[in-house]
Amino acid sequence: MEIEIICTGDEVLTGKIVNSNFSFIAQRLEDYGLPVVRGLTVGDNREELLSAFLGAGSRADYVIVNGGLGPTVDDLSQEIAAKAAGVELELRPEWIERMERHFARRGRTMSENNRKQAMLPVGAELLDNPIGTACGFAVTIGRARFFFTPGVPREMRRMVEEQIVPRILEREGDQGVIILKRFHSYGLGESHVDNLLTGIEAMVPDGSLKLGFRAHYPQLETKLTVRAASAEEARRKLEPVEAEIRSRIGNFILAEDDETLEGNVLGALAAKGHTLSVVEDYTGGQIAARLTALPGCEQVFDRGIVALTRLNKKQLFDLDAALVERGICLEMAATLAGQVRRQAGSSHGLAVLVDAGPENEAGNLTGAIFIALATPEGLVTRESTLTGLRAWVRLGTVEMGLDSVRRHLAGLSLEDRTDFERRPA
Amino acid sequence: MEIEIICTGDEVLTGKIVNSNFSFIAQRLEDYGLPVVRGLTVGDNREELLSAFLGAGSRADYVIVNGGLGPTVDDLSQEIAAKAAGVELELRPEWIERMERHFARRGRTMSENNRKQAMLPVGAELLDNPIGTACGFAVTIGRARFFFTPGVPREMRRMVEEQIVPRILEREGDQGVIILKRFHSYGLGESHVDNLLTGIEAMVPDGSLKLGFRAHYPQLETKLTVRAASAEEARRKLEPVEAEIRSRIGNFILAEDDETLEGNVLGALAAKGHTLSVVEDYTGGQIAARLTALPGCEQVFDRGIVALTRLNKKQLFDLDAALVERGICLEMAATLAGQVRRQAGSSHGLAVLVDAGPENEAGNLTGAIFIALATPEGLVTRESTLTGLRAWVRLGTVEMGLDSVRRHLAGLSLEDRTDFERRPA
Repeated sequence: MEIEIICTGDEVLTGKIVNSNFSFIAQRLEDYGLPVVRGLTVGDNREELLSAFLGAGSRADYVIVNGGLGPTVDDLSQEIAAKAAGVELELRPEWIERMERHFARRGRTMSENNRKQAMLPVGAELLDNPIGTACGFAVTIGRARFFFTPGVPREMRRMVEEQIVPRILEREGDQGVIILKRFHSYGLGESHVDNLLTGIEAMVPDGSLKLGFRAHYPQLETKLTVRAASAEEARRKLEPVEAEIRSRIGNFILAEDDETLEGNVLGALAAKGHTLSVVEDYTGGQIAARLTALPGCEQVFDRGIVALTRLNKKQLFDLDAALVERGICLEMAATLAGQVRRQAGSSHGLAVLVDAGPENEAGNLTGAIFIALATPEGLVTRESTLTGLRAWVRLGTVEMGLDSVRRHLAGLSLEDRTDFERRPA
Repeated sequence: MEIEIICTGDEVLTGKIVNSNFSFIAQRLEDYGLPVVRGLTVGDNREELLSAFLGAGSRADYVIVNGGLGPTVDDLSQEIAAKAAGVELELRPEWIERMERHFARRGRTMSENNRKQAMLPVGAELLDNPIGTACGFAVTIGRARFFFTPGVPREMRRMVEEQIVPRILEREGDQGVIILKRFHSYGLGESHVDNLLTGIEAMVPDGSLKLGFRAHYPQLETKLTVRAASAEEARRKLEPVEAEIRSRIGNFILAEDDETLEGNVLGALAAKGHTLSVVEDYTGGQIAARLTALPGCEQVFDRGIVALTRLNKKQLFDLDAALVERGICLEMAATLAGQVRRQAGSSHGLAVLVDAGPENEAGNLTGAIFIALATPEGLVTRESTLTGLRAWVRLGTVEMGLDSVRRHLAGLSLEDRTDFERRPA
């Protein structure tokens, strides 16, 4: 079975937009055991589009086309799909109604040029888009079944997951369902996790379980898909596997599926009525920025202090001369965590400090990292070292700081060694 | 003239990596008047690669291939290039020497599998890669000239700009040089700037000047390219054009070429021996994080305070009850800017506050923005309103806050209205 993706649009072809739609579609199809064999990018150009559709129709079994379903004159996908399929365009009244309701809900009336979005090739199968005006559709061109999707990412994503993947699986004779389960971890590299999870696929002896990874520093995504006759059966197969994964790498799992680390930290604090204050230096506000990006953060996040230098820290906190003299160290982090907690009157105080060495000619530096979390029950700390580019050390430190809070709230040790760090000498 | 880009590699094809290399290559070629007509993505697969190379060789004039030049067995570009061109591979001793020097400089010895990177199709023209071990090269396949580039972004970028663009221009009979000049602005939309710059291209009557845009909220990039017989002549042509652009949209230009807004703000403060302290709420540390991402920031950036709620602000600063009662307003911003400046003993104090309304069902909200900058000469302020998704309002507010500092230091008004904001009622 061959699947191709065709991305259309001058903005993508000229590089004005980075084509993240392609990677989403390819990934989701791969997650469901539907690997993509080829990707094509063409502009808003009738000849190029026609040649792309005819070419893919002669080679592939399935083709996902992205973009070109909008209301403007340079949106050509329906027109060229009809031409390639050898049929006319026809107005689909059910989509006109949908668009009218869509605009009415927003207190607007549909403009005349939106009618174009309801013109589909004769005989096309409609693919629902519950959150936009671009109408998805499927037609057969040559030997391939084509699925046309909107360029707006959230509309495309939903259509791929809800409309397209099930149709391809059904056409391939897969009567069942596939469930995708994702674990997000910090601290272990891809090959390390791969080793730790040896034998996982064999836990489901019928071969219906697949394990995959996607690394995007500082996090690693571990993905499981399982096929079964029903969602219930799939979940039954998955349950012991999830438990086994949690028992092997559980301490490192910071979120699952659509959760985020910062969301889980805020949620865990909120669930216990806790509040958090943060002092950071080298990370420069990034720890605060991650936590405050979320709605409702003001219930939990008390204050954030960015104090880069020793002098800043001395002015903002009550530090004795000997400690200021010593500079960035674990005791300094512990002192600041305790003081910011007291000053703010918050239940938890986090200090994340970095003693960053000089950059070498390649731009790499070594940062000694000191993390302290002051809690109602006392103090927990962590020391670490990261070496790399400035931005890499910063990102890793932010992750380690937030992960330390998660670990403490989950009753875990802060000290599990990660694959990224060097042990302090 | 037809140019195609072929991106290779399983990581790109399966969507594990978002293909930003494609957008860089397409953009740079477009910048130099070399539009790309087609993009193709294929995996590390001999058959697919061969079919892609032969297909592009039969259609295009120039083909840029990205990836597959590494030392491992799944790096297939040289092998398939030779096959498609109908020649053998041969060892290029000059590249072995280059790699040996490369490793020696890093105190390492070259491993045996790196030899593979010096195997090029017989007759290939070498394309230098001064910062890596992947050897670029050019060969002719069918009617097209192929340029093979490394997958590592910074190596690819340099090779495209320094090696490939000049070769294509020369082959197209362009004896001269092309200079690219970029302006980054905040606050004006693409069509607005396009209108404001009406007639700019005509300032160079020989047609050698091209104007283009790339919008990436909150910034807009305005790009000029000029062709000339020599770099000197190109600069002579550009000079009055640049001056005209600065006179038409100069207040909105926050950086040029590889500069950044935060870099320019830090630089302007440092040049005068100034220091800056920041108080922010809704932006949650993002203003601090932008400024502290840069080396040397600790000379200028004094402290950053994230205080989300009224209560936070009251605890951290000396605010009278009536002001706390009023809540987020311009007077509050002015008070906090003045106090953080005094508390820190810094020359400048910036307060950026947002009174954010509730999110509607689509996730949009309206934020009233209050910016105050306390300086040795007194106070300057700005009020604004942004409506959109939470992340969009946050990004716009960060930009407006930093841009207000830039404007003040450059002696400009803070109040130029942007296309994104609504005037406060």
